[in-house]
Amino acid sequence: MPEFTHLDAAGQARMVDVTAKQPTVRTATARAKVTCSDEVVAALRDGTVPKGDVLAVARVAGIAATKKVPDLLPLAHVIGVHGARVDLKIVDDGVEIEVETRTADRTGVEMEALTAATVAALAIVDMVKGVDRSAEIVNARVTAKSGGRSGDWRRE
Amino acid sequence: MPEFTHLDAAGQARMVDVTAKQPTVRTATARAKVTCSDEVVAALRDGTVPKGDVLAVARVAGIAATKKVPDLLPLAHVIGVHGARVDLKIVDDGVEIEVETRTADRTGVEMEALTAATVAALAIVDMVKGVDRSAEIVNARVTAKSGGRSGDWRRE
Amino acid sequence: MPEFTHLDAAGQARMVDVTAKQPTVRTATARAKVTCSDEVVAALRDGTVPKGDVLAVARVAGIAATKKVPDLLPLAHVIGVHGARVDLKIVDDGVEIEVETRTADRTGVEMEALTAATVAALAIVDMVKGVDRSAEIVNARVTAKSGGRSGDWRRE
Amino acid sequence: MPEFTHLDAAGQARMVDVTAKQPTVRTATARAKVTCSDEVVAALRDGTVPKGDVLAVARVAGIAATKKVPDLLPLAHVIGVHGARVDLKIVDDGVEIEVETRTADRTGVEMEALTAATVAALAIVDMVKGVDRSAEIVNARVTAKSGGRSGDWRRE
Amino acid sequence: MPEFTHLDAAGQARMVDVTAKQPTVRTATARAKVTCSDEVVAALRDGTVPKGDVLAVARVAGIAATKKVPDLLPLAHVIGVHGARVDLKIVDDGVEIEVETRTADRTGVEMEALTAATVAALAIVDMVKGVDRSAEIVNARVTAKSGGRSGDWRRE
Amino acid sequence: MPEFTHLDAAGQARMVDVTAKQPTVRTATARAKVTCSDEVVAALRDGTVPKGDVLAVARVAGIAATKKVPDLLPLAHVIGVHGARVDLKIVDDGVEIEVETRTADRTGVEMEALTAATVAALAIVDMVKGVDRSAEIVNARVTAKSGGRSGDWRRE
Repeated sequence: MPEFTHLDAAGQARMVDVTAKQPTVRTATARAKVTCSDEVVAALRDGTVPKGDVLAVARVAGIAATKKVPDLLPLAHVIGVHGARVDLKIVDDGVEIEVETRTADRTGVEMEALTAATVAALAIVDMVKGVDRSAEIVNARVTAKSGGRSGDWRRE
Repeated sequence: MPEFTHLDAAGQARMVDVTAKQPTVRTATARAKVTCSDEVVAALRDGTVPKGDVLAVARVAGIAATKKVPDLLPLAHVIGVHGARVDLKIVDDGVEIEVETRTADRTGVEMEALTAATVAALAIVDMVKGVDRSAEIVNARVTAKSGGRSGDWRRE
Repeated sequence: MPEFTHLDAAGQARMVDVTAKQPTVRTATARAKVTCSDEVVAALRDGTVPKGDVLAVARVAGIAATKKVPDLLPLAHVIGVHGARVDLKIVDDGVEIEVETRTADRTGVEMEALTAATVAALAIVDMVKGVDRSAEIVNARVTAKSGGRSGDWRRE
Repeated sequence: MPEFTHLDAAGQARMVDVTAKQPTVRTATARAKVTCSDEVVAALRDGTVPKGDVLAVARVAGIAATKKVPDLLPLAHVIGVHGARVDLKIVDDGVEIEVETRTADRTGVEMEALTAATVAALAIVDMVKGVDRSAEIVNARVTAKSGGRSGDWRRE
Repeated sequence: MPEFTHLDAAGQARMVDVTAKQPTVRTATARAKVTCSDEVVAALRDGTVPKGDVLAVARVAGIAATKKVPDLLPLAHVIGVHGARVDLKIVDDGVEIEVETRTADRTGVEMEALTAATVAALAIVDMVKGVDRSAEIVNARVTAKSGGRSGDWRRE
Repeated sequence: MPEFTHLDAAGQARMVDVTAKQPTVRTATARAKVTCSDEVVAALRDGTVPKGDVLAVARVAGIAATKKVPDLLPLAHVIGVHGARVDLKIVDDGVEIEVETRTADRTGVEMEALTAATVAALAIVDMVKGVDRSAEIVNARVTAKSGGRSGDWRRE
């Protein structure tokens, strides 16, 4: 039976001890996608007015979210996020989000990347829901990581 | 062309004025799903030790997240969340999450429900990622709302 | 067997639904006490320099803490704290703290008062621990409440 | 001698009791200005690339700051901010900021408007400081308020 | 007369300069106790339903609180908490709490341990107060620390 | 045309990557000034009661604000603030504020100093506005920095 690192032998939640881990450069990328109606996509794509700050608000919400992980996830460590990039791409059926996070601290930043992608997606749903109630998040996942003892990884 | 409520005529982000809306009882439900490996599902289902606090941690993270929406979404209003329930169900390929939020305040609580479902999902990914790196969120969406001027709605 | 209001029939944590409760004026008082060495008490009592901002810092920490309850206690409601007073009294063996909180919202403010008293106590321990490592909190309790459906109550 | 509302008769800080005040619509406006070098102003005015998200980030930071007042100002009440608008205007020697905040709650929102204008100004300084270390905030003030018992006011 | 480290020579609060301190592994333990009625203790001990998430919620609240110290205590440093464990034990007259915190950062984590023990205690009071209004915190104190320049210490 | 470090080549906001920067001791100072009426200045100067906690509250708000920069400024890094001092001086037409911040982390602390000076100023405006609605912030600026790759700097 696998053992969850966040639980002790009695099954009780804990914050895993990382005092012995070394500060090294680590990166992670995550992706999420929001689907929305043709009407919304057209409005987002329109180069004149309506698009306005929508993508900027989502990008800022995502970047800010990289710093809120210790507050959102009870067992997550306080970590120095040392770089973050949130890319948004309007596609035919919605918006694709890719986040890269970087740190020179003791733990990986996969959850920071995934949380940022997810919160950027939530911000988009929030802004378009007045026009399209059916907008939804159709996936959110870590796609790659590098650095740290467990080494590099890429989702296949 | 539809108009996004969160933007003014110049396309600039704003917090929508809701001073004229009345405090009334409003509810919303949202669902999310995390898929993970058979090994993780087996461990979560096991009635003895390993399962431990996993579901409780995710539930608490979700409930707490209903209160963090104004902090996560830049344009969201401060709202009194007056009730929240997070249900977690272990299924064959992962964990299904359903959240119901309630308020007697001026705006709907759809984003509170969706954010809670999403954060509970993030908490699960965080706890199982040591065993299964491929765990991911495969959907997150508002499924119903009631109350307020725009009336009841249910996703079909 | 008594039933905990914060758990549903299956024993799962929830945020209790208070949408049906009425906004009315409610108050609560709580007390806490920190004991510390004679040396610290003498320094706190001294009218000249050393005392400085110690009591002001503890008072501010306590008042600010009345607003942090929804963040500290996962199942607590977001509530409008509409008045708070933190009194500190230096006694022979330490510092006594009394907090009064007031609201015109839907739930009681006992936890706001108790949290404020406790955090003021923590702030005192933090500031005096360099001089007296043994400083400790010897009690913290709600002493009275008024308003709301359950009526007035006073600890005997 | 005037009496500060935030202090009791003994000069101790408190959160003023507003349980007897009525929820009514209240508004406030505040302005701030950041001055910066010609080089920065030219870059901000440039219609093509460099300007990018600078104004959007400042606007979002300002709107978000309206919700952080209870956290920043120890004696401020938790208040429902029910509308916010942050306007930024590039002028010959820098950026002018105007914020309007609205609420239907128990206290005025002057500090919410002033804090938002100030934080938007800080965000601009943060983003341009790499190019112009001398960028500074040259004023920040409430310019008008309406609603509440003390009535309307406009700075002359 | 002893000097409080958190005050300068004029008695004014400050955040103590720790830039010259070295990052090393430091640990601290703290304990707190909540007393409550026989009825509540029996319900908490009952192995079937009522106990439910009560201990898990308190444990999560305590772990999360280790990360909130810089927010709760105005003069505390931002510190990387690198490990935390919250143990809860139901005894005949209530619940005993023991917390261990660990860091590889520049300052000790005694206040992190004590704050976590105290917040776990507050969470328990919050959850049982509907059944037993008299539940109270009867002590909260640091019991040991190790690491750092001042060396190891254990309460006698 | 200068390039803003917080924007990428496409003009999109990002959190600048600082993983390659070294942790070294860095300091910054910032100043702000609040002007207020003769009446308020007299009350603040009065040595007996009215002055009370006003300066202590502003000082604590400023120190606490050094830790809130990552939350207030979306693109700012999480940084360990390792020392902070907030000095307040009552002058003939108001209050002058000077803040010094120190860190042994990867980025400068100019924004921490400037934010603290500004928030201390906001706290003063908040406390005196009941007596003098015209109180305002007349400047807030970084005055010096030391450490880091870009070296020392002092405003002339």
